[in-house]
Amino acid sequence: MPPNRSFSGVSRRRALLTTAAALSVSIGPAFPIVEQAGAQTDPLPSWNDGATKQAITEFVARVTRQSGPDFVPPAERIATFDNDGTLWVEHPMYTQLAFALDRVKALAPLHPEWTDTQPFKAALEADMKTLGASGAHGMAELVMATHAGMTTEEFQKIVTDWMATARDARFKRPYTELSYQPMIELLAYLRANGFKTFIASGGGVEFMRPWTERVYGVPPEQVVGSSIKTRFQMRDGRPELFRLPEMNFIDDKAGKPVGINEYIGRRPIAAFGNSDGDLEMLQWTTMSGGVRLGMIVHHTDAVREYAYDRDTSFGRLDKALDVAAMNHWVVIDMKNDWKRIFAFE
Amino acid sequence: MPPNRSFSGVSRRRALLTTAAALSVSIGPAFPIVEQAGAQTDPLPSWNDGATKQAITEFVARVTRQSGPDFVPPAERIATFDNDGTLWVEHPMYTQLAFALDRVKALAPLHPEWTDTQPFKAALEADMKTLGASGAHGMAELVMATHAGMTTEEFQKIVTDWMATARDARFKRPYTELSYQPMIELLAYLRANGFKTFIASGGGVEFMRPWTERVYGVPPEQVVGSSIKTRFQMRDGRPELFRLPEMNFIDDKAGKPVGINEYIGRRPIAAFGNSDGDLEMLQWTTMSGGVRLGMIVHHTDAVREYAYDRDTSFGRLDKALDVAAMNHWVVIDMKNDWKRIFAFE
Repeated sequence: MPPNRSFSGVSRRRALLTTAAALSVSIGPAFPIVEQAGAQTDPLPSWNDGATKQAITEFVARVTRQSGPDFVPPAERIATFDNDGTLWVEHPMYTQLAFALDRVKALAPLHPEWTDTQPFKAALEADMKTLGASGAHGMAELVMATHAGMTTEEFQKIVTDWMATARDARFKRPYTELSYQPMIELLAYLRANGFKTFIASGGGVEFMRPWTERVYGVPPEQVVGSSIKTRFQMRDGRPELFRLPEMNFIDDKAGKPVGINEYIGRRPIAAFGNSDGDLEMLQWTTMSGGVRLGMIVHHTDAVREYAYDRDTSFGRLDKALDVAAMNHWVVIDMKNDWKRIFAFE
Repeated sequence: MPPNRSFSGVSRRRALLTTAAALSVSIGPAFPIVEQAGAQTDPLPSWNDGATKQAITEFVARVTRQSGPDFVPPAERIATFDNDGTLWVEHPMYTQLAFALDRVKALAPLHPEWTDTQPFKAALEADMKTLGASGAHGMAELVMATHAGMTTEEFQKIVTDWMATARDARFKRPYTELSYQPMIELLAYLRANGFKTFIASGGGVEFMRPWTERVYGVPPEQVVGSSIKTRFQMRDGRPELFRLPEMNFIDDKAGKPVGINEYIGRRPIAAFGNSDGDLEMLQWTTMSGGVRLGMIVHHTDAVREYAYDRDTSFGRLDKALDVAAMNHWVVIDMKNDWKRIFAFE
């Protein structure tokens, strides 16, 4: 481990701060959020009290205390969030895959050859085993067939219309309602404390942008994600961007810090993920010599949501879980740390 | 021309608004900026009064008037600015080329072969004619040799150090002082009216980000530009992004709308450029069916700055000038529209 004034300092100072918390008079000025959100209001009501919640509020207190040694100017308070499995449900499959399968069905009449061509045949038959066996190449074929071949405006409308009508099979609700209420509170809490909140997701950037502002309060220009190439062209005297069946950028694993640097140009001081796809983002964020916060959403609640980590096709959490403690990343135990998972509960 | 509620509407309504302007009581509520900037303060003091300045203030008035037919919500008030020749001087050569030439000199002791290898020989001898003849391929070689092979943090320091010491040959000042005062006022004026201001430049994004916030008030995450690829790696237990000698994205010409869509994800309602490299950005911005503002900085002042358009190696303005009137783009006549060009005047 490099010399690193990491978040471990919080642990060491926790006893001190907990004692201080009992003396509400003296703690007041150290927590600017309390003033902003109203002295009596808990900004994170869906989080159970405990070490996890405390890790968040203590981190925010430290970096926002103007006279303190760990103060970070507002312009540098960048926080990045993975999306699938961190901000919303990613089981039984990524929502974008459900979208792609629905698009294959919708487009099938135009492609009679799909009924006996893989991976389209499997998609049409909802044969997830064959689909999974088609691997990354098969997935890419599905994405290109369903996400390319139209303008950016047309694709935006397709996504928006689908989001308005599609329903998750288990919860019988629009997918955007399957966002985690504690994380939505966390996003708002960070913003109330001068943070700029970004999404850094392996998902398609143009699949997310139509709804992230409404659901998470994150505007399109603060969404980083995977993308396909587009081409500018004039058609009938009007300019358009046409979506091409060619990968542009994959914002996953080692691509996440690359994308964060390319799109944001600042190094985050807080990052939130849930899978090995977020490992490098957490490393990039927390191993930079200041007080940093890295958190991992651990899916431990099979009753209210899902329970999985090392053995799953969507959102595998293995290596990142192994190194979490060593890196002082805080693991969120969904079952015990979250009072409420969804707003509709 | 497509059916287009373009900025031409402003011309038609100019007489009406000018009349209204004389009745300051009635115009008050229509111009929110007046309240924000103080009723008696001109937010654009370096702009001479006239049609150009009026085009700006009328556009802003129309899109910010909440009860008006052309109101645009703050979240959608995206404005994009080219950098070289639009926000700062681009003659006698792009500043980034001056940087590359200085870097070749600084690195020459490590590369004895450069003394007889083109384009490095020409760079070391400041032989601009041979350098120009080396074309895009030669330029790419210069960029890769000087912009790659180090971490992003190292490159940021190299740029920052260079900016602090390098001086423009004619004005004998740091390059960042060669930014245009009227455009800095325009950036601030738009932001005061709820706009989010972005740079969309053909220049390197990591060459600009270290200083755009200080000089233009544009933070790194609102800078779109050209880029080379980076690779995430762990070295001695610390994460770093290593800059590779491989082009990632060229944010010029038809690449500008592509970059704007990819990085910002919203279509601008105002765009500012000065060369044919900005043509497609201006098309993408203004041909979208609402009240839009497209402006071109025309370099017409050989005494205070430079005079050039169709016949120049840096910032050629030809086709975009030809179609400006037809598209209702406002051409800024630097000599007559700008009272002052630089802050140091």
